[in-house]
Amino acid sequence: MNNEKITKRDVDFAQWYTDICRFADLVDYSSMKGSMIIRPYGYAIWENMVAILDREFKKSGHVNVQMPMFIPESLLQVEKDHVEGFAPEAAWVTRGGSKELDEPLCVRPTSEVLFCDHFKKIIKSYRDLPLLYNQWCTIVRWERTTRPFLRSREILWQEGHTMHATEDEAREETLRMLKIYEDFQKNYLAIPVIVGRKTDKEKFAGALETYTIEAMMYNGVALQNGTSHYFGQGFAEAFGIKFLNQKNELETPYQTSWGVSTRMIGGLIMTHSDDAGLVLPPKIAPIKIAIIPIKNTDEVNSIVSEITDKLDSECITYYLDDTDKSPGFKFANAEVKGYPIRIEIGPRDLANNEVVMVRRDTLEKIKVNIDDIMKTIDELLKSIQDNLYKRALVRRDSMIYNLNTYDELSEMAKKEGGFAYVNWCGDVACEDKIKEELGLKSRCIPLSEHRSDGKCICCGKDAVTKIYFGKQY
Amino acid sequence: MNNEKITKRDVDFAQWYTDICRFADLVDYSSMKGSMIIRPYGYAIWENMVAILDREFKKSGHVNVQMPMFIPESLLQVEKDHVEGFAPEAAWVTRGGSKELDEPLCVRPTSEVLFCDHFKKIIKSYRDLPLLYNQWCTIVRWERTTRPFLRSREILWQEGHTMHATEDEAREETLRMLKIYEDFQKNYLAIPVIVGRKTDKEKFAGALETYTIEAMMYNGVALQNGTSHYFGQGFAEAFGIKFLNQKNELETPYQTSWGVSTRMIGGLIMTHSDDAGLVLPPKIAPIKIAIIPIKNTDEVNSIVSEITDKLDSECITYYLDDTDKSPGFKFANAEVKGYPIRIEIGPRDLANNEVVMVRRDTLEKIKVNIDDIMKTIDELLKSIQDNLYKRALVRRDSMIYNLNTYDELSEMAKKEGGFAYVNWCGDVACEDKIKEELGLKSRCIPLSEHRSDGKCICCGKDAVTKIYFGKQY
Repeated sequence: MNNEKITKRDVDFAQWYTDICRFADLVDYSSMKGSMIIRPYGYAIWENMVAILDREFKKSGHVNVQMPMFIPESLLQVEKDHVEGFAPEAAWVTRGGSKELDEPLCVRPTSEVLFCDHFKKIIKSYRDLPLLYNQWCTIVRWERTTRPFLRSREILWQEGHTMHATEDEAREETLRMLKIYEDFQKNYLAIPVIVGRKTDKEKFAGALETYTIEAMMYNGVALQNGTSHYFGQGFAEAFGIKFLNQKNELETPYQTSWGVSTRMIGGLIMTHSDDAGLVLPPKIAPIKIAIIPIKNTDEVNSIVSEITDKLDSECITYYLDDTDKSPGFKFANAEVKGYPIRIEIGPRDLANNEVVMVRRDTLEKIKVNIDDIMKTIDELLKSIQDNLYKRALVRRDSMIYNLNTYDELSEMAKKEGGFAYVNWCGDVACEDKIKEELGLKSRCIPLSEHRSDGKCICCGKDAVTKIYFGKQY
Repeated sequence: MNNEKITKRDVDFAQWYTDICRFADLVDYSSMKGSMIIRPYGYAIWENMVAILDREFKKSGHVNVQMPMFIPESLLQVEKDHVEGFAPEAAWVTRGGSKELDEPLCVRPTSEVLFCDHFKKIIKSYRDLPLLYNQWCTIVRWERTTRPFLRSREILWQEGHTMHATEDEAREETLRMLKIYEDFQKNYLAIPVIVGRKTDKEKFAGALETYTIEAMMYNGVALQNGTSHYFGQGFAEAFGIKFLNQKNELETPYQTSWGVSTRMIGGLIMTHSDDAGLVLPPKIAPIKIAIIPIKNTDEVNSIVSEITDKLDSECITYYLDDTDKSPGFKFANAEVKGYPIRIEIGPRDLANNEVVMVRRDTLEKIKVNIDDIMKTIDELLKSIQDNLYKRALVRRDSMIYNLNTYDELSEMAKKEGGFAYVNWCGDVACEDKIKEELGLKSRCIPLSEHRSDGKCICCGKDAVTKIYFGKQY
């Protein structure tokens, strides 16, 4: 733990965020500008995310592969929209083994073209479909301004790439993976998300449709926290991928891709944390319990070992702070790190057969009889997980504004954050105008209840849909 | 499975190896020359290796981190020997976001300098030591000639980097990790290894000492299958890393690094496989059992589900081949893929209450009473694991030659492989001569029984040690 003080969240949200990232030992900066070091505590959060998602991907029939990290320039150029979208923010290797390369190599910003290049070789018949692949890897995007987890030149992520015999199947896959992301964020990260479709303007380069889960951070700013793309046959045609169907005719398959990244850690921080430091939902926290002995008496030590033995046997992770620091320092450290529960064990409480537990979400202190310790831990972990989700949901909903006029929208745009839920005619001209004049970007057209019979908030023509607008990371 | 025929191992070992890699669906080539695609079956072997090693690393107190993948040229140059060793085979990013970079960035060939750059910031006092870090990542070395798993421009690996308050502790760590590698290769990969120290000539660039585990492939050629380096204070001094010791004095810490890579998959293949395809030790095989119904009768189907239920409940992985291919094709496929056991279930054997099991290591057929299936699977998996190790050990030992004269050594050098175990004076001139004249490289000075009172096999002067020489991948 760092001894400096965390900036107050309501004073300077951006600085508060960076302070949490650094003081909770999640990341550090390095001599490689624009990239970050993910420190052990931050990486342990990512390892938990990977373990849970990887299990879900495998349960739904996906297998992991590893593609090259470099893309020859000519390969990137095969799909026109795609190269236009990614080339401007690519990093290029031009020298290898002290020789200039004949062809520059792009460090993968995403791997659609590498997968298609491979799929062309291995897909021959309907028997090879569906092909359900996933890759865990690092990608590179040459961002000008960077922020830990949110925008970095190097990003750890997963990218699923699948091929299907029919359009229906591919569309189902696109939404199936979106649902896995939604459930993961809701059930593990305790982050409420809006599930929807991106407008044509905001789609992934080369996709026919991009679906997204949009989260709202504490300050009302949007975080696109996972996307799933339906490609139709676009890439497959560009790469000449064909399969023999059951009638022995050549057909072009249908494609999807989907991904989430370490950006989710940024989302976790900006959804739950507070002025005392990081707050982590128990289900994703690398360490669930901090155990802090107040004094090293025999009695204290014996209760400490009793508790750690029980936690070990139930596989509940903990950190026993037996350093020579003061109790006050240890409490503050446990708060900065966001351990969901801290247990303070001192002789005075033990005289009453009690210990003190502090839940990190509310910082509420609870006296617990030593016979009820394990039961209370169990209840508190569940309660904290639930409370974090509900608290985030209430806050988010309080910042979703149903607006009807352009004036209302421009008023709202002056706030730091919040989502406007409005009628839209579907015309990109209105979307552009709202972005340029008000700095609000379309978030998504929600999958549920998006039909509208009102008038477009921008041009006043008949609306075709409801849509969310907001500022974004 | 590919329908082409695997080249015979004794006819063309190199082609046989490549055939196994491709026909067993382990790797594929891509438009990115010199890199490989690790296909799902190959990647599943790597996932098993990662899971086992990661558990061992964590048990011994190590935590995972993630450093940037790029190294600014100036940072790479801080340690002189290191940059000389790695710069010639580096890939360089010179353009980012369509702009020439002010400083070229090396794609990490290994991460010592990135770790040191970070350690300088986070190590302050003896309380911060030991620092036991590990990283799973991809590294890049711009090789001219490449072979799947053995020599590739991109390598998946882990690299441990640790810092210690004392020399003794750092030296202990270096050997502790070497032992973890040795045990892993012996107990899981069934690969016998010689544990030893590299000569000064063959050390890692920047290390004071490099320890290695040397495996011998079926053809007698050596594969360096893992290394552990003791750096002393060299990097720490170059980077100005200091800590306050318990007496409140500034001291320079002692450093180690250690790594293994996907190269181990190459080692697995070249140690155990045969003319019928891949052979995998059960403990590392992603799929332990192939179940092949010979006919789809009710009786066959009912036994098949009985077996798969039991395998599921015991978490034994299997592949049920219910495709419409012929039994002969399915048998061949199971052999190419190296599933340790295949179970053939047909009506004729079932009439005698039997199924046929074939163990992949010997291709021996065994009739098994249906009541004994699970027990036999258990026994066979253990027996195959043991047999593969013993078989490899016998073959390796038969190709280790205790030689005394330079003539004997030059005779041996004409063979495809084998290790010479000889006396050496310790002079690099002799080592160079043996390499240049005979094409044999020093493998290692074995940790056990390496003292010698004989004469150097090259110059005839008093020897200081025993040493292994051999050809290498």
